[in-house]
Amino acid sequence: MPVEKVLVLHGPNLNLLGSREPDVYGEFTLDEINNELKKRGKSLDIEVDCHQSNHEGALIDHIHDSTENYRGILINPAALTHYSYALRDALIASGLPLVEIHLTNVFAREPFRHHSVVSPIADGLIYGLGLDSYLLGLEALVNIIKKS
Amino acid sequence: MPVEKVLVLHGPNLNLLGSREPDVYGEFTLDEINNELKKRGKSLDIEVDCHQSNHEGALIDHIHDSTENYRGILINPAALTHYSYALRDALIASGLPLVEIHLTNVFAREPFRHHSVVSPIADGLIYGLGLDSYLLGLEALVNIIKKS
Amino acid sequence: MPVEKVLVLHGPNLNLLGSREPDVYGEFTLDEINNELKKRGKSLDIEVDCHQSNHEGALIDHIHDSTENYRGILINPAALTHYSYALRDALIASGLPLVEIHLTNVFAREPFRHHSVVSPIADGLIYGLGLDSYLLGLEALVNIIKKS
Amino acid sequence: MPVEKVLVLHGPNLNLLGSREPDVYGEFTLDEINNELKKRGKSLDIEVDCHQSNHEGALIDHIHDSTENYRGILINPAALTHYSYALRDALIASGLPLVEIHLTNVFAREPFRHHSVVSPIADGLIYGLGLDSYLLGLEALVNIIKKS
Amino acid sequence: MPVEKVLVLHGPNLNLLGSREPDVYGEFTLDEINNELKKRGKSLDIEVDCHQSNHEGALIDHIHDSTENYRGILINPAALTHYSYALRDALIASGLPLVEIHLTNVFAREPFRHHSVVSPIADGLIYGLGLDSYLLGLEALVNIIKKS
Amino acid sequence: MPVEKVLVLHGPNLNLLGSREPDVYGEFTLDEINNELKKRGKSLDIEVDCHQSNHEGALIDHIHDSTENYRGILINPAALTHYSYALRDALIASGLPLVEIHLTNVFAREPFRHHSVVSPIADGLIYGLGLDSYLLGLEALVNIIKKS
Amino acid sequence: MPVEKVLVLHGPNLNLLGSREPDVYGEFTLDEINNELKKRGKSLDIEVDCHQSNHEGALIDHIHDSTENYRGILINPAALTHYSYALRDALIASGLPLVEIHLTNVFAREPFRHHSVVSPIADGLIYGLGLDSYLLGLEALVNIIKKS
Amino acid sequence: MPVEKVLVLHGPNLNLLGSREPDVYGEFTLDEINNELKKRGKSLDIEVDCHQSNHEGALIDHIHDSTENYRGILINPAALTHYSYALRDALIASGLPLVEIHLTNVFAREPFRHHSVVSPIADGLIYGLGLDSYLLGLEALVNIIKKS
Amino acid sequence: MPVEKVLVLHGPNLNLLGSREPDVYGEFTLDEINNELKKRGKSLDIEVDCHQSNHEGALIDHIHDSTENYRGILINPAALTHYSYALRDALIASGLPLVEIHLTNVFAREPFRHHSVVSPIADGLIYGLGLDSYLLGLEALVNIIKKS
Amino acid sequence: MPVEKVLVLHGPNLNLLGSREPDVYGEFTLDEINNELKKRGKSLDIEVDCHQSNHEGALIDHIHDSTENYRGILINPAALTHYSYALRDALIASGLPLVEIHLTNVFAREPFRHHSVVSPIADGLIYGLGLDSYLLGLEALVNIIKKS
Amino acid sequence: MPVEKVLVLHGPNLNLLGSREPDVYGEFTLDEINNELKKRGKSLDIEVDCHQSNHEGALIDHIHDSTENYRGILINPAALTHYSYALRDALIASGLPLVEIHLTNVFAREPFRHHSVVSPIADGLIYGLGLDSYLLGLEALVNIIKKS
Amino acid sequence: MPVEKVLVLHGPNLNLLGSREPDVYGEFTLDEINNELKKRGKSLDIEVDCHQSNHEGALIDHIHDSTENYRGILINPAALTHYSYALRDALIASGLPLVEIHLTNVFAREPFRHHSVVSPIADGLIYGLGLDSYLLGLEALVNIIKKS
Repeated sequence: MPVEKVLVLHGPNLNLLGSREPDVYGEFTLDEINNELKKRGKSLDIEVDCHQSNHEGALIDHIHDSTENYRGILINPAALTHYSYALRDALIASGLPLVEIHLTNVFAREPFRHHSVVSPIADGLIYGLGLDSYLLGLEALVNIIKKS
Repeated sequence: MPVEKVLVLHGPNLNLLGSREPDVYGEFTLDEINNELKKRGKSLDIEVDCHQSNHEGALIDHIHDSTENYRGILINPAALTHYSYALRDALIASGLPLVEIHLTNVFAREPFRHHSVVSPIADGLIYGLGLDSYLLGLEALVNIIKKS
Repeated sequence: MPVEKVLVLHGPNLNLLGSREPDVYGEFTLDEINNELKKRGKSLDIEVDCHQSNHEGALIDHIHDSTENYRGILINPAALTHYSYALRDALIASGLPLVEIHLTNVFAREPFRHHSVVSPIADGLIYGLGLDSYLLGLEALVNIIKKS
Repeated sequence: MPVEKVLVLHGPNLNLLGSREPDVYGEFTLDEINNELKKRGKSLDIEVDCHQSNHEGALIDHIHDSTENYRGILINPAALTHYSYALRDALIASGLPLVEIHLTNVFAREPFRHHSVVSPIADGLIYGLGLDSYLLGLEALVNIIKKS
Repeated sequence: MPVEKVLVLHGPNLNLLGSREPDVYGEFTLDEINNELKKRGKSLDIEVDCHQSNHEGALIDHIHDSTENYRGILINPAALTHYSYALRDALIASGLPLVEIHLTNVFAREPFRHHSVVSPIADGLIYGLGLDSYLLGLEALVNIIKKS
Repeated sequence: MPVEKVLVLHGPNLNLLGSREPDVYGEFTLDEINNELKKRGKSLDIEVDCHQSNHEGALIDHIHDSTENYRGILINPAALTHYSYALRDALIASGLPLVEIHLTNVFAREPFRHHSVVSPIADGLIYGLGLDSYLLGLEALVNIIKKS
Repeated sequence: MPVEKVLVLHGPNLNLLGSREPDVYGEFTLDEINNELKKRGKSLDIEVDCHQSNHEGALIDHIHDSTENYRGILINPAALTHYSYALRDALIASGLPLVEIHLTNVFAREPFRHHSVVSPIADGLIYGLGLDSYLLGLEALVNIIKKS
Repeated sequence: MPVEKVLVLHGPNLNLLGSREPDVYGEFTLDEINNELKKRGKSLDIEVDCHQSNHEGALIDHIHDSTENYRGILINPAALTHYSYALRDALIASGLPLVEIHLTNVFAREPFRHHSVVSPIADGLIYGLGLDSYLLGLEALVNIIKKS
Repeated sequence: MPVEKVLVLHGPNLNLLGSREPDVYGEFTLDEINNELKKRGKSLDIEVDCHQSNHEGALIDHIHDSTENYRGILINPAALTHYSYALRDALIASGLPLVEIHLTNVFAREPFRHHSVVSPIADGLIYGLGLDSYLLGLEALVNIIKKS
Repeated sequence: MPVEKVLVLHGPNLNLLGSREPDVYGEFTLDEINNELKKRGKSLDIEVDCHQSNHEGALIDHIHDSTENYRGILINPAALTHYSYALRDALIASGLPLVEIHLTNVFAREPFRHHSVVSPIADGLIYGLGLDSYLLGLEALVNIIKKS
Repeated sequence: MPVEKVLVLHGPNLNLLGSREPDVYGEFTLDEINNELKKRGKSLDIEVDCHQSNHEGALIDHIHDSTENYRGILINPAALTHYSYALRDALIASGLPLVEIHLTNVFAREPFRHHSVVSPIADGLIYGLGLDSYLLGLEALVNIIKKS
Repeated sequence: MPVEKVLVLHGPNLNLLGSREPDVYGEFTLDEINNELKKRGKSLDIEVDCHQSNHEGALIDHIHDSTENYRGILINPAALTHYSYALRDALIASGLPLVEIHLTNVFAREPFRHHSVVSPIADGLIYGLGLDSYLLGLEALVNIIKKS
């Protein structure tokens, strides 16, 4: 029975996954991704909590709550990636291991997507692998936690 | 009796219209603008719903709800114009015709107002015409909808 | 019977409208646009004169002549938008209300098209609406004249 | 008995003060800072209201309410300093005297912290003095109010 | 007897060739270059028309006329190379094969000469070879026409 | 009786002097300036020819004709200052002494006016002195001619 | 028995792994990494070939040979990441699925390491996870191959 | 009787205070400011020495002498703020607590005033508060000294 | 007998005129230039005082003294042109008419010489005319004084 | 029988011509191009040696050897175009006439391809003409050799 | 008899010294420089090994071998100075004292030569002194070794 | 007995050597460095005069006096390195051989220290070698003098 937990955070618009530009972001819905993450978590002997919000402030509130309850954070900051220094500061303040993931390879898209305000403070980055970005990101995060 | 609807979104601080720097933004209150828009909508045979929020996340939530209920979006993103890639992504995801308007001519103001993260994804842009930015914007949006 | 007049100026290459890249610029010929403008002008109780030139100097000469004869200028500067400070200076010198329009949304095209040397001195801007850019631009211009 | 009031606003993540990177931001909790501010306010014959939020929109709502109720604003915009043009527009719209403070000297930290979208519209700036940034900022604000 | 024709356009100041800075631009006059081009055209079984103008507008008028009468354009835009987006738009609109040539190697000269607004829309570029830039450019243009 | 001649060239919009923004450009008409130049020329024992055009190409044609007939050029390129590399090339090709003048101090105006494509090839520059920019510019030009 | 093969390429200086700045790059030798990759490959039912070179040209030669023999490429381009457009062109030419990995989080290091000329053409990117960058990268690559 | 001393340094042109652009810099003369500082110093139980110079070298000489005699430095570097790396190096070398102040909010003025070569090495910054910049700056400096 | 006086200031290294790079700066010594200026001043009915210094601070001290004693300033700031904001502030503070001159055409020299921190605050600029820069500059300054 | 020789150098990845992205680079193999070059060389009475390498160092070695044996160099530096200053220095050191060619019009492709470190030192440039870039480049080179 | 050894590395094209642009790089051949270095080494009681290569990879291989055998590296990276991050990483990995030299003063040459990717990691830099750059560089290196 | 002399100049704050940040600038005092320089000068058969000043103007005065009395200049401009174009112009005007030295490797420090306004006009540069920067710089200077 797992006792450790990690927090998975999904940024703005990710609630639309599956219907929003499926040729760009893939055919999985957010629920399906969350289920896959929980399943993979189980196989890695860790519990996975998932939250999505379109509100920067709500994501920050979640991160503030995480320090007590989680061992690490897996985040897809979506469009907040490119400007939310408030999110960045919250993640630093959590003091937790951090893996940043993106479904797409942001460097193959518009120039504004090439810059992440989160990446300099993450432990690891996984971009462009669709559902695998999440699943391998979880695996990486668990390995970091185990080593720490 | 109109059956089609369009969504009008007003960004942060636009609730202050009429009292906030009237020499810059004009003497109309937001209620007056909304009334004019509904009246013009009636003459164009379309129903007009108006929402204002100071919360980026709340605007995004509204846009997510719009895909089902509206035929197009008329948006004055206000200060979010210059940095809210989350808003931009929500508008793309809606798949709806989009007209971006500003009350003032942003190119005659501070340099940071010259750049819009929304404009590259809009169908049409109307800037600098005060109340007319909204009314002509509505007219333009209805024409786009009719042609589509 | 209308007694007020406005000047509509079309910049270089706009004489080719209808045949030039119709998927970009639309299927209307310049004559058809001018006719629509005159018709709309009539309904707005204003006379509309239209001129096109591929010569920057000829456009400037026209603007110089306009101060006496017109109440406002509606201009599509076409490619001169991006570098003709001489055109800009002529428009300032005219002292007339000014609306700048473009058939296409320039911000969705090549980077060099994102910068307009005319926009900071215009009263209003309408981009991306095809024929509607002209017609709504005329409407906006007439409203500005009425208020002044 | 004081009858005048000023508003103190704390931006995202400042609720963590005392626990978050204490070597960077100091050992005081936000409650302690607020108490010191109220005490100093009393000695300056002014009432001090304090609010913190991780939500840009909530801070803007507070500012909108302040015009009626307060004589000035003391703000530590935290990470919103660097991108929230919506916050900036709200502060301008309030028409109130404004002092912007930071606990740390932002110019001695990462380059992205060197740019403030708020500072050009503030009356005064106090950076790098920890608790003193707040207390001297309050003193400065009260002096501005007295002179106005 | 050739029935196909190509248009050769020479931009501003090229009428001075032979006398203007001969150490930079060579000792050939424009007439001599035009004669060489016609001669080479004859050997390639194509008729060559040559025009020079110091007026951007006149060059554009020529290009507009060319769509009907010519199979391709060889252009030395001279100083217009660096800023005439109007010329660029005219050349695109012609829909004809295009070779841009320069007598000198512009990359070995002043920095402002390194940027061409025409080169991204040309089929081929030949720089720095003096009279050979024209003659080989004609040969290249004819080959493109033959293949199309 | 003077036998030497210099050419004075006025760029676009300068025909409007006296009426165009007199608080910026002064109250003299172009005719009055030309008369003052001829008078001053007489006192300096040199004949002065003056031309104004709104057409870049016409100014270039004039410069081409000047090599034979003039000993020097005094030019106020007006807005062409900022982009007309074709004018610059024509002036170099003339091989004549050159003084560039502006009525206003361009460095105290909009940023785009701070850059001149002509100034690097001029012998002397006189800016900001109104009519005196022309008259002292003529004096400077005559002195250069006398020394050469 | 596996019949499919993937190519793992290690760029300059990676032969030093284990001894070179172990606090930056980790304590594993390249041989140990290669062994882990082969072992993981076996569990994924794919054969893994590994090559390291300090010569850009030798890496390109290897890639040219890979089209015939491999189903995908996993590459750590090391310092070539930042300038080797030749490597990039070779990888494009291979037409094979591509995962780019780095042992460290390059965005937390010197600015020149933030730019990769390879990343825009990769399918997936995994940075900052030490040995896991390689192992998860292999897993990701195999999944891409299986889906294609 | 105070035994501790701090050094107040005023940069170039500050000797003109009171007469120089009083609408920008205020109506106080430098003598009045110095008197206020000494008075406030007395109330804070610290002696205050004040020096002004228009010579960068003289200011540096003063700073060199300060290490022995002072416990901290309060500096208004005036225009040297923007380029005097020599002043910066002298201040670092002093090893003393440092508060940099400006009478005006430099971020609301010309762009060249937005950059300070001193601010990255100061302990605290106070800008835009006129005389209060000095007085609160002194208070801040004394608090830093007391804590050290 | 003249009663009005103007101040002529020469910046660093101008004491070397005549011997320092005479092919760049001309063959006149500073004494000869000063004599020519006094002679020309006499003919213009104004007294001319001349000072040179290699010390920025000494030039500023001179400007401070000038407000009482002079009607205008003619300055060749030499290398201080490019960075001395302290000099600029002193010149603004003087409140006197100002003409900035240079012996050479700075725009035809190294890029760092193209930027003047003084020019935006001068009334007039004369560059590139050697001794005539001074003499015509004096004439211009006297004309400004007469008109004021 | 020809006795003069020229060297043709092909940079990295050009050995793949014909198979690599044929829609970009054409259908000719490198062998076919070399044969065409030799044939054209024969008709121009010059011998043509061709070398390709993926190794920058090997290309430099070839250039070093060329000074003795060849009269000129025709080079397609491929991706090395954009960064190999070592190649550039080798080509300068050879002292031989140089023509740089590209199969494609690099200015119509990714921005990094717009900059060539070789072009400022070449005699002539031919871009975008496929096989004709090579053949006309050879013709140009032979003409340069004949004239020298 | 010396027992300590240092490695001298010469980058691409330095094998041509003496014949390549002798007015730029001097009249010494590489053999002569190497002999002078060995002689100077003898007088400094250290053995000197010299290698030159046009292959970045070969230089890196040499550096890898050096950790065991040498006490320090003296390098003239030639054109690799400006882009070879692979060379830089190899030099860091060696952990040896490093002096970077250039025969010429790179800051007096083309802009691209002003940037060195090696200089930030070197202990000392000697530029512009021809043979003395090498000899004094050796002396400096030996002194660093002696002190370490 | 030496009859030739060289001038050694030390810029601002170098009088503090030995006490100022010894971990950065070393433990030698300026007197000790000067003594070492005089001793090394004696062994090189040249007399060495040393001056330090915190005043840019005083350094310039010294350089002006040097043309008559010295055969070369060795300078450590300290912080003036980064902005003193006046110092640069004085050094050019001296016409003497020039070696610029720095105690530290400026390229391993803050970005503003990477740019020297002096280096483009120096004959040689020696950075990062502490006392050896001075001593080897003197040796290099003497060798330049001997060769001239």
